[in-house]
Amino acid sequence: MSTARDLATTPGLSQIADVLAAGGDRLADLLERAEGRLGRVAEGYGPALEGHVSGTLAAGGKRLRPMLVYISAGESASDDLVAAAVAVELLHMATLVHDDVLDVAELRRGQATVFAAGGREAATATGDLLFSRAFAVLATTGRPDAVRALSDASSALARGELLQREDAWSRDLPVERYLERCGLKTARLFAAACRLGALLGDPGPPAADALAAFGDRIGLAFQIFDDVLDVSGPVERTGKARGTDLLDGTVTLPLILARRADPAIADVDLRGAVTNAEEAAVLCNRIANTGALDEAREVALGHVAAAKDELRALKALDERQRALLELVADGVVERYA
Amino acid sequence: MSTARDLATTPGLSQIADVLAAGGDRLADLLERAEGRLGRVAEGYGPALEGHVSGTLAAGGKRLRPMLVYISAGESASDDLVAAAVAVELLHMATLVHDDVLDVAELRRGQATVFAAGGREAATATGDLLFSRAFAVLATTGRPDAVRALSDASSALARGELLQREDAWSRDLPVERYLERCGLKTARLFAAACRLGALLGDPGPPAADALAAFGDRIGLAFQIFDDVLDVSGPVERTGKARGTDLLDGTVTLPLILARRADPAIADVDLRGAVTNAEEAAVLCNRIANTGALDEAREVALGHVAAAKDELRALKALDERQRALLELVADGVVERYA
Repeated sequence: MSTARDLATTPGLSQIADVLAAGGDRLADLLERAEGRLGRVAEGYGPALEGHVSGTLAAGGKRLRPMLVYISAGESASDDLVAAAVAVELLHMATLVHDDVLDVAELRRGQATVFAAGGREAATATGDLLFSRAFAVLATTGRPDAVRALSDASSALARGELLQREDAWSRDLPVERYLERCGLKTARLFAAACRLGALLGDPGPPAADALAAFGDRIGLAFQIFDDVLDVSGPVERTGKARGTDLLDGTVTLPLILARRADPAIADVDLRGAVTNAEEAAVLCNRIANTGALDEAREVALGHVAAAKDELRALKALDERQRALLELVADGVVERYA
Repeated sequence: MSTARDLATTPGLSQIADVLAAGGDRLADLLERAEGRLGRVAEGYGPALEGHVSGTLAAGGKRLRPMLVYISAGESASDDLVAAAVAVELLHMATLVHDDVLDVAELRRGQATVFAAGGREAATATGDLLFSRAFAVLATTGRPDAVRALSDASSALARGELLQREDAWSRDLPVERYLERCGLKTARLFAAACRLGALLGDPGPPAADALAAFGDRIGLAFQIFDDVLDVSGPVERTGKARGTDLLDGTVTLPLILARRADPAIADVDLRGAVTNAEEAAVLCNRIANTGALDEAREVALGHVAAAKDELRALKALDERQRALLELVADGVVERYA
């Protein structure tokens, strides 16, 4: 099971360490409480399912979404807040487990996926269980507005997943459609995390929309930057081969921008031209040479700036909370910096 | 979109027609309201997902679980009750859509499955969306006890699905383990439907456990009888080939009992001996010849009787509601009668 200390020392995530340091004992304590509750989430569901769930949870991850719940909540440290953080993380994990089935992915975060360890059936059931437990845990707060926030994000995730597969291999994907997909697949859950923190924490419902808008913007920035990292690498930092998006036909912002800049790249049909890691690495280099990566990073930074603007409209935030949120906003585009 | 009238005339479901007739205008009206809300559940999720969801919903089904919500609620006819009925049906459908992916099933209720029409990705995303919408709709009731009831049933379903696949092809499955699986896969959602009706309707929280126990028992009876029908047919009534369980290695009560009665059947290894519809039909006949089907029907009837006993403990029920619940209890084991 990962702890706040593990998170702080996860390679390449120096920004997370900064956030943890600034968040102090409150944040560390809340994250530990979330880990404890995550560890018990599959208890009583039989050894097979417990094994798959605890393996998924133990594989770690940055716990960025729970952190957003906590930071958005101000100084509150209630059990309801921990429930919300756990629920958001469970939903995130449920989608990862289902994605791994669809992608026939053997490894995630260096560990065997549930799909690899238990097969398609076990992974589908594990994902469904994680979905269910997310809502069960959140229901303990007794807050229907919280349940609604999570279920809306969950519905958006499903739609985003579908959009990604509909648009696979597209040769003329508009930027707007790419951004819509990022919004559905990634940003809505960031937004829900911030909304839950507001609803259940100190800011309260009046601040929920503004904090959700902040979350939405940094979610977009996070996803765009993720897509840049897929092209830029390096492997030692990202932990995965360059160009995995290109290999599975996922059209991202760097490719869209590179196609505009270089007609030869515009003519590349991913399905025929990128069939192995070497070909993917070659195309990554060609994309990088157009300057598309810097351009995409600029787009991401634009969303970070817009996120901070959302905070400025929130008069109720104290300076400490604002500073922490800004640190997270900067962090999502400075990973591996 | 199916209506109360369509339900009443679904071939072979004469018992449902009896329940509808006895339920009068209140039940017909509530079922129509559920259909209306089910029809709008995917609005705003894009044409592809809307198409898959509305296809799944329009394929109909008996709406037995919504009926249980309504009948358990007494005379109440609130929007919250409709929300609960819709949520239970959405969850049921979510699991069917995911099951069809795992079973590589092309047809369900005579219509192309989402898996067949849209592929694995679309079906996984559609199932996830239906899961999410179930909780979103239920959250509109503002009742965390309701959300908890559904999420507990949802978790049980996931575990039951896994158990079924773990136990596939087993040559010595104990009856207890078979019943445990039926409880998780089927009965818990019946129980949740009754619990939701009690919580949100006239009986109120004090009657919730007893009504849930009633639902649990008839859910068990329903599943056992379903497993009998898989062996007994006839195809014209059940709408599917005999022995589909045998073909995919699912060990059910008729087979367990037949193995006890006939050592030659006990020696059959499903994986090698039942590889096509003809071999499945032959084994179905051999199982029927042992008397195992009557014996399994008796077990189902025992659970129906136990279900009625649960109702007797409920002093608060009025006679009309008790009579309707008993009609449903009898109906689940007299389908196609």
